[in-house]
Amino acid sequence: MPIQPIETVRWAGDAVRILDQRRLPGGEIYLECRKVQDLAEAIRTLAVRGAPAIGIAAAYGAALAALESRTGPGYEARIEASLDLLESTRPTAVNLFKAVSTQREILAGVAAAGGDAGSVFDALLAGADRMLEQDLEASRAMGRHGASLIRPGSRLLTHCNAGGLATGGLGTALAVFYEAWDRGLLSMAFADETRPLLQGSRLTSWELSRAGIPVTVLPDSAAAGLLASGAIDAVFTGADRIAANGDTANKLGTYPLALAAREAGVPFYVVAPLTTFDPETPDGDSIRIEQRDGGEVTHLAGVRTAPEGIDVYNPAFDVTPVRLISAFVCELGVLRDGPGYAMRMLTGER
Amino acid sequence: MPIQPIETVRWAGDAVRILDQRRLPGGEIYLECRKVQDLAEAIRTLAVRGAPAIGIAAAYGAALAALESRTGPGYEARIEASLDLLESTRPTAVNLFKAVSTQREILAGVAAAGGDAGSVFDALLAGADRMLEQDLEASRAMGRHGASLIRPGSRLLTHCNAGGLATGGLGTALAVFYEAWDRGLLSMAFADETRPLLQGSRLTSWELSRAGIPVTVLPDSAAAGLLASGAIDAVFTGADRIAANGDTANKLGTYPLALAAREAGVPFYVVAPLTTFDPETPDGDSIRIEQRDGGEVTHLAGVRTAPEGIDVYNPAFDVTPVRLISAFVCELGVLRDGPGYAMRMLTGER
Repeated sequence: MPIQPIETVRWAGDAVRILDQRRLPGGEIYLECRKVQDLAEAIRTLAVRGAPAIGIAAAYGAALAALESRTGPGYEARIEASLDLLESTRPTAVNLFKAVSTQREILAGVAAAGGDAGSVFDALLAGADRMLEQDLEASRAMGRHGASLIRPGSRLLTHCNAGGLATGGLGTALAVFYEAWDRGLLSMAFADETRPLLQGSRLTSWELSRAGIPVTVLPDSAAAGLLASGAIDAVFTGADRIAANGDTANKLGTYPLALAAREAGVPFYVVAPLTTFDPETPDGDSIRIEQRDGGEVTHLAGVRTAPEGIDVYNPAFDVTPVRLISAFVCELGVLRDGPGYAMRMLTGER
Repeated sequence: MPIQPIETVRWAGDAVRILDQRRLPGGEIYLECRKVQDLAEAIRTLAVRGAPAIGIAAAYGAALAALESRTGPGYEARIEASLDLLESTRPTAVNLFKAVSTQREILAGVAAAGGDAGSVFDALLAGADRMLEQDLEASRAMGRHGASLIRPGSRLLTHCNAGGLATGGLGTALAVFYEAWDRGLLSMAFADETRPLLQGSRLTSWELSRAGIPVTVLPDSAAAGLLASGAIDAVFTGADRIAANGDTANKLGTYPLALAAREAGVPFYVVAPLTTFDPETPDGDSIRIEQRDGGEVTHLAGVRTAPEGIDVYNPAFDVTPVRLISAFVCELGVLRDGPGYAMRMLTGER
């Protein structure tokens, strides 16, 4: 039975409803954001995270902005200000900027056509719904394409959470795991715990368990030895931004994982929808990497685990050079020669 | 001013006194183990950890066993049983086995010479004192040899805790940091936090801060990107066992760190006293790697961070192949051609 999408981000009449990932796996709690400011805070504090999911949340945030700004003059400028706020929440994932940019175009189009506040809201909500539907379709396609790379009995490793929780509900890398499991190809899913915020042990193992897939969690630094021992058949991760040359920003720890996979001769696949491919960014050096608060590293569950007065280096992402990536999997198929085909499709469309 | 040794393990009249590393950095609490069983538990639960420190603790454990077994017949057999217990606490560090084996020889020698229980105790205590003194001497020598590899203004990275807390009080890799700091060569110490038990953020940053050295803590998986960015001049780690061919078991995460250092062209040095070199183990494949409880990974500060019912892969160590190690630093000097010279010194001595 195919996996049911997780309701990671949905529209709820007059609010953006978000499964609060800060509370997982302890509780399945939903936030209803009725103000753009609350939604921005939810994105910034990782109640919703994952490049595609952030994009969809921001798109619904545009509809929320239209609701908030409905009355009085200058609603268009107020919506634009809300979009600026949403755009400022996280710097690395390109999906956020693309989603906001699409909604800006819709806003401008409806306004130029003389549409009133109500029709702006309708158009922005429809735009967000379309993104969610496209994301689910893309997930299903990535699952099928990725599963074509997997032999029966495979043991697959992933990092962070590139699952239903990171997307509209079915995932990128984990869409491949779900499809492989449906086809009887997957014998064990391995999930890096993913420090500092433990998206692997908190989120990935939660959603895989929920789907009945056996899962083994490991400290991030155990992956290299596990790969060297021959216990892993392939690695699949998501991406936050894929530069034009194929260098890929993804959750901190992806780059050392790719190094270890290459050393072990294990294929390393990046799974991402076209919305994550960014022809505007030439290479990895041009990707801005978010630095997060040191408290994420020096405190665990509210307990201080490092002495006072030390410095912390806590980037949210790292960049994996394209030479370490065996292939990209997107909704168009498996791209073995770098991301060029996907980039041409994107630039051709504009 | 040279750093004062930390009193990691000391003899306290009728007990082995241990700085309880499970409580750091929150509190500087000392355990007094008056029974061998308590000491074995302290080693097993990492109140004392680090290959040289475990060896010294077990050596003092032999003196404790002699005190416990002093009265009544068959004290020799009872001491032997206590040594068996101490030997069973941790499987990977070779220092433990060497220390116990040395004490067994002393025991047999004194007993064969017709010594009574009192003279057995005196001999075992003197044996342990000698190991501690040799360890401190070795640390000072490693610090000097290692510092010869360092240029002014260096930014040095280490993993886990190979400091005073892992030894008799001055460290292996950190002995080099202390000496480099004394000579004005060290501009910043970087410490991997070292999951799952956070010896880097809890212990290494504590002891470096205590010595006035500026320290930056990072998630283990941030090291690869930091190395790639050119921000690190050299990596120094300790070792738990160095096989005859130079393959080195050390704390989980050392192997991916060595891969990342090689990729970045940054030298990767292993610092260990002769007691950690093991001519009896031919290569890395022959080293038994301790698997530890999954709860170390699924719980943080008592809070569950992963769903129930998942598997955990939690090895305490990994093996770094000798090809990734730029040089070994031991009390004899810097060994650039593998560990052969140290191994010959050890086998020649027997």
